[in-house]
Amino acid sequence: MPDHKTAGVPRRHMLRQAGWALAGASMASHSAGATEVDAAAPPWMTKQGTPAADAPYGSPSPFEKSVVRRSRDKSPFLTTTSVHTPLQDLTGIITPNGLHHVRSHAGTPAIDPDRHRLLVHGLVEQPLSFSMDDLARFPSVSRLHFLECSGNTPFYNAEKIKPEWTVQDTHGQVSCAEWTGVRLADVLAEAGVKPGAAWMLAEGEDAAALTRSIPIEKALDDAILAYAQNGERLRPENGYPLRLLLPGYEGNTNIKWLRRLKLGDQPFQTREETSKYTSLLPDGTARQFNFVMEVKSVITRPSPGRDLGQHGFHEITGLAWSGRGRITRVEVSTDEGTNWQDAVLQEPVLSKCLTRFRLPWTWAGGPVALQSRATDETGMVQPIRARLIAERGPNFFYHYNAINTWRVAAGGEVTLAV
Amino acid sequence: MPDHKTAGVPRRHMLRQAGWALAGASMASHSAGATEVDAAAPPWMTKQGTPAADAPYGSPSPFEKSVVRRSRDKSPFLTTTSVHTPLQDLTGIITPNGLHHVRSHAGTPAIDPDRHRLLVHGLVEQPLSFSMDDLARFPSVSRLHFLECSGNTPFYNAEKIKPEWTVQDTHGQVSCAEWTGVRLADVLAEAGVKPGAAWMLAEGEDAAALTRSIPIEKALDDAILAYAQNGERLRPENGYPLRLLLPGYEGNTNIKWLRRLKLGDQPFQTREETSKYTSLLPDGTARQFNFVMEVKSVITRPSPGRDLGQHGFHEITGLAWSGRGRITRVEVSTDEGTNWQDAVLQEPVLSKCLTRFRLPWTWAGGPVALQSRATDETGMVQPIRARLIAERGPNFFYHYNAINTWRVAAGGEVTLAV
Repeated sequence: MPDHKTAGVPRRHMLRQAGWALAGASMASHSAGATEVDAAAPPWMTKQGTPAADAPYGSPSPFEKSVVRRSRDKSPFLTTTSVHTPLQDLTGIITPNGLHHVRSHAGTPAIDPDRHRLLVHGLVEQPLSFSMDDLARFPSVSRLHFLECSGNTPFYNAEKIKPEWTVQDTHGQVSCAEWTGVRLADVLAEAGVKPGAAWMLAEGEDAAALTRSIPIEKALDDAILAYAQNGERLRPENGYPLRLLLPGYEGNTNIKWLRRLKLGDQPFQTREETSKYTSLLPDGTARQFNFVMEVKSVITRPSPGRDLGQHGFHEITGLAWSGRGRITRVEVSTDEGTNWQDAVLQEPVLSKCLTRFRLPWTWAGGPVALQSRATDETGMVQPIRARLIAERGPNFFYHYNAINTWRVAAGGEVTLAV
Repeated sequence: MPDHKTAGVPRRHMLRQAGWALAGASMASHSAGATEVDAAAPPWMTKQGTPAADAPYGSPSPFEKSVVRRSRDKSPFLTTTSVHTPLQDLTGIITPNGLHHVRSHAGTPAIDPDRHRLLVHGLVEQPLSFSMDDLARFPSVSRLHFLECSGNTPFYNAEKIKPEWTVQDTHGQVSCAEWTGVRLADVLAEAGVKPGAAWMLAEGEDAAALTRSIPIEKALDDAILAYAQNGERLRPENGYPLRLLLPGYEGNTNIKWLRRLKLGDQPFQTREETSKYTSLLPDGTARQFNFVMEVKSVITRPSPGRDLGQHGFHEITGLAWSGRGRITRVEVSTDEGTNWQDAVLQEPVLSKCLTRFRLPWTWAGGPVALQSRATDETGMVQPIRARLIAERGPNFFYHYNAINTWRVAAGGEVTLAV
């Protein structure tokens, strides 16, 4: 059990050495009269509670009402905004479906699943149309994968970064779920892929008819036609009743409300891969079809708005992910990159999935700067910001994955640093 | 990737051999006019959808309103009922929090987390009381584990089994989540466990003040004081703000709304381990402290109410679990136990966690009887019903884990067989 020990040292012993003294300051205030608790039953213990049957589908406690998705920016067009996941409040690697981030271009369509069809056409032996019942007949597969918007963490242009942003604002366009559906390869085989088919157009059934071109190699590799997330059917805003799931690819290509797949011999040059979702390089050319989300990590606690409070023991924890495979290492620095310590990776560590990391740490009380740096199984390491900007220039917009810095002031206040 | 191939045979090839002919019958009805789909945009594609910001915390599609928890039996006392998870509608291994089964003895208390305290006392060096903030200071841990009510599948007495039960009724008191909290061992170490401490009383802060005695070995092994499930804070009905999580132990011992832990030198002989949650053996003695949930499995699709429909290819899928560790094998029989085939286990396969299994199958059309049989890493195999009854007698009630049978009629109707 990797999380019972760190580098061979029993955690308890390590914590004692780190001066972890919860039994002192923070406990004393509550210990007085502790054994009297029985005599002072709280009000909710003195009467029958709410019947479970009152909530056939449950909801969070009213005390958690601040844990919600929200937008970073106001938009004049409400249906084209993005709502971000509250990473600062979440634990583990699963994003509950009600808090999965959403990016949509024309709002959420209210699709009747009985009327929904998926058309497969173009360079196929036989064009086919599938109902949801047809798709349910195929063998199913479940996998845990992250989804990240390629515009997550828009940090290339320092002037556009707002110092009041929290981790929800800066990194909240990434989420993770157990996705279930059918292998796209099985469905394409049913239609028969013709020689020469090199690209696949995927089209959504929203008012934006969002379309992207996908290399056929990806379609035949690990792509899923997903109809469920975290055990239940997709949520409406995440593609109900059917979405494309391209593990590790930028979120925008994972077409929601999927209605059509067309095979062709070249990319279809849609709006979403010409005027948008391309990146302008320093030499004036544009990088197109930049699909894979690179290795990245962020510390979610402490983070802005989640100040440190007392000196002494704190756990530093966060998330790491890579579109290229598994995370193999996450290092944490508390001195802005001079020294690094290996964080513990929480099992399970899965390919193209969020990985939770943790590091026990004692805050001596002075100002510090916290950073995390992830490495994936291909050997890719998160770059520092300066290197990323030097390579890509300030007009690049998508796929920002540089090391992130939180500053901790002497008083424990945590803020974004760029 | 174990689910791309089965026993070395590419799935596509295997399916063709199995007579999997979706492109024939079921596709033809939808293929006519398939290429006209573009010209007939459905109504939800012709107008802007709902803004994502309208749902800061999302909900399932209205078309999924039948996918809810429900009780098997009517109870005169609404706060003491159990609501079951709709296993027939779920995929993968994660149970969404809104559908996690609930068993409570006095309803759900509405606990204010800021006022909640956990008292640790008895055979400890120093009695301590912890606020939720105090507990949040400890190092955290996340693990995926199942929770099963020890009364799940009440099949010892055949007279009490109702033929109309679905898998939600028979097996729906098992769920699975990624739990996050702090190691109980760390918290007990903070108080200092005195020599002679052999048992731990755990008490809930509901009106039932539900209490159980737990062996100290379990408390110091893998027990978690959990404050989160699937990324977010515990749901009220599942123990908000704090519950005991004893991986693999019967559900009732995983005390919800946890308020008190008392160490002692012997079990505390509470109502829930004397008059209840013990089992009467054939020789007239009672089995007490029967904690570990034994190896078990169930086919969730097909299952009663989810009839087969057309002849031809179907996937048989279900869940397996063991309180003793990992599932190593699930076999499926379509002839009531004469012949068995190995099902594919979906990764990740984790200790004391639900495991999803799948088997491609061609239904020739006659009546069949479907069974699954799980084996865990300790070598324990699910018994047949007759052997379990012979060992335990008809007055045993808890921990039923025998092989389950679904009958498929010639018309495709699926019903419970005992």
